Amino acid sequence: MTRATILDYAKRLIAQPSITPATGSVFDEMEAMLAPLGFEISRFIAGDSPEDAELGGPVENLFAIRHGAPGSRHFSYAGHLDVVPPGQGWQTDPFVPEQRGDLLYGRGAVDMKGSIAAFVGALHHLPDDLGTISLIITGDEEGPARFGTVAIMDLMAERGITPDLCLVGEPTSVNRLGDMMKIGRRGSVNMWITVNGMQGHVAYPHNADNPITKLGKILSEIDSLQLDEGTDWFQPSNIEFTDLHVGNPAHNVIPARAEGRLSIRFNDRHSGESLSAMVKEIVERHGGELKPIISGEPFLTPPGEFSDIVAGAIREVTGVDPELSTSGGTSDARFLAKIMPVVEFGLCNATMHKLDEAVAIDDLEKLGEIFALIVERALR
Amino acid sequence: MTRATILDYAKRLIAQPSITPATGSVFDEMEAMLAPLGFEISRFIAGDSPEDAELGGPVENLFAIRHGAPGSRHFSYAGHLDVVPPGQGWQTDPFVPEQRGDLLYGRGAVDMKGSIAAFVGALHHLPDDLGTISLIITGDEEGPARFGTVAIMDLMAERGITPDLCLVGEPTSVNRLGDMMKIGRRGSVNMWITVNGMQGHVAYPHNADNPITKLGKILSEIDSLQLDEGTDWFQPSNIEFTDLHVGNPAHNVIPARAEGRLSIRFNDRHSGESLSAMVKEIVERHGGELKPIISGEPFLTPPGEFSDIVAGAIREVTGVDPELSTSGGTSDARFLAKIMPVVEFGLCNATMHKLDEAVAIDDLEKLGEIFALIVERALR
Repeated sequence: MTRATILDYAKRLIAQPSITPATGSVFDEMEAMLAPLGFEISRFIAGDSPEDAELGGPVENLFAIRHGAPGSRHFSYAGHLDVVPPGQGWQTDPFVPEQRGDLLYGRGAVDMKGSIAAFVGALHHLPDDLGTISLIITGDEEGPARFGTVAIMDLMAERGITPDLCLVGEPTSVNRLGDMMKIGRRGSVNMWITVNGMQGHVAYPHNADNPITKLGKILSEIDSLQLDEGTDWFQPSNIEFTDLHVGNPAHNVIPARAEGRLSIRFNDRHSGESLSAMVKEIVERHGGELKPIISGEPFLTPPGEFSDIVAGAIREVTGVDPELSTSGGTSDARFLAKIMPVVEFGLCNATMHKLDEAVAIDDLEKLGEIFALIVERALR
Repeated sequence: MTRATILDYAKRLIAQPSITPATGSVFDEMEAMLAPLGFEISRFIAGDSPEDAELGGPVENLFAIRHGAPGSRHFSYAGHLDVVPPGQGWQTDPFVPEQRGDLLYGRGAVDMKGSIAAFVGALHHLPDDLGTISLIITGDEEGPARFGTVAIMDLMAERGITPDLCLVGEPTSVNRLGDMMKIGRRGSVNMWITVNGMQGHVAYPHNADNPITKLGKILSEIDSLQLDEGTDWFQPSNIEFTDLHVGNPAHNVIPARAEGRLSIRFNDRHSGESLSAMVKEIVERHGGELKPIISGEPFLTPPGEFSDIVAGAIREVTGVDPELSTSGGTSDARFLAKIMPVVEFGLCNATMHKLDEAVAIDDLEKLGEIFALIVERALR
């Protein structure tokens, strides 16, 4: 039964277009799947004031909970129903789920409607009295994420709900289902550098002050930094410049301003604050100004009971020994890890965010089995 | 008579709007002033094919010559009738000459319709049989200058005409009339740098190749160059970066390409070619590409008889001892100096290219006297 159920759930979710930020019908489907399983469902819109629009609002969110016996443990699954825009060039309609051979095609097939379908399918195999189970499902993980998972966490805090463990179902597998799970993520900070100089004619440089010269010194000094050499669980922190801008059309004019932007992905040796202070010192010493925006602090769920349960379930179903990784981009785990141990595991990410996103139907079924084992053992 | 004549000439030229490239009525006025003085006048349009438009065409030019006795010396005056756009905010119409107090206001008053008026006025004071006198008057000095003075030089070459000396009447004075003349100009070259890398996600830098890092190294190495320490007659050659461009809106993406532009003003220790080769080596060593465009090679008319005549005339009329300079931007002297000794002298440049451009009426008269002395002594 599970195979047909999970495939059907995945198709139903893919069939509801939900380009980030998601609202409406895709949440109706989600609610229709969970309600028969005995979950109390809370749906709400966050970020719906006019000034929230530029921060990605409005966003729909859903929190579903099925209480176990008093004092029982609480397992939570977190995911998102929004998807990135499909882009042009799909072989079939990205929002019409299409089964061809062993694959199911559609935007969100692996990131991450397929995962959500697998988790809901897994619930069919679990006894009702196992413990408390909840689902944290947002409509904005792919966007600014200002009114998504953090808004659900606010709701949980109001109700005094703190799960014991959280599994984030993001697509963490690489070449085959089960080869990678994540026990942490690097932090992320973007920084905008502005250097003001004094405009002037290139023939009279003593009457001008070239901001590009200063930005060059800043760039050079920052590029020479080595933040760390990595840790047992994290790769080395890394700085990349991502943009430069002057916008001076006149060949004979020294410009008044030069701007740069950089991005740092960093491990738990640093914080967004400590890196901002370090770069700010360099930038200001060369006469520039820095504006940092911290997207997320790093987190680590040190290997232990929870990761053992997840790795064991993966091994049992797939025969694959998962790598415990902290690589890659950020996910909503950066928020959730503030209140509980978080591990991430899900489908293969090869086609995520790409044209003709597709999931192996067999992987959907296996993922459901893995999820069922994890929940059962985590709540035992 | 000279004072009234020069002032009248200046007003007539200012009253004909001639934003670069200039054609038409301002040349009609010029011709009307010179014809009664016995000059043969050649007017022609250069750069009038459709593909010339982006190089600044079409441009009108005028060459006027009054032959002296066979074997007599030939003195040439060079100038331009085009002006830079007036911009917004003038107190009076920039193309309606306005006399207020001791000043004459109007676009081109000092750069350089006033100078041309002074030279034509000076001709009234010179005997007809002094020698050969010519005027090289272009409609594009302020723009690309591709179809201006060089086109007149082509015409002169066709006719086998090479003056013995050339005075370029650009505004070289700084604080008071006569305090600076120019015996040379630096060369100028602009260079475009392109660095191609490989686009990728900032979270996976090992799968990308950041071109900004390479551009930073190029910038840093070029900024550390000291081209020379100047010469007896030239200030040190100087490099200024004038633009940077990446244009990457995505905070989490390492861009595929980074671009920079620089401008070098250089003395006669270098050539456009030698500098292009030097910078090309640096850029290519860091994986970039260079496209140089040489605007002009440096020139020097070493101090001697001609500069002595000009400096002496200035001293005699104004009481000021002129500095013999090679500073500042380029002028059409960079072309003319290829075929004859060139010195530049003219009005105060404080208001050139600015709002409310104005010339002291007394300076116009004195400049006419200086020009008359120079021509007389140069042809004697």
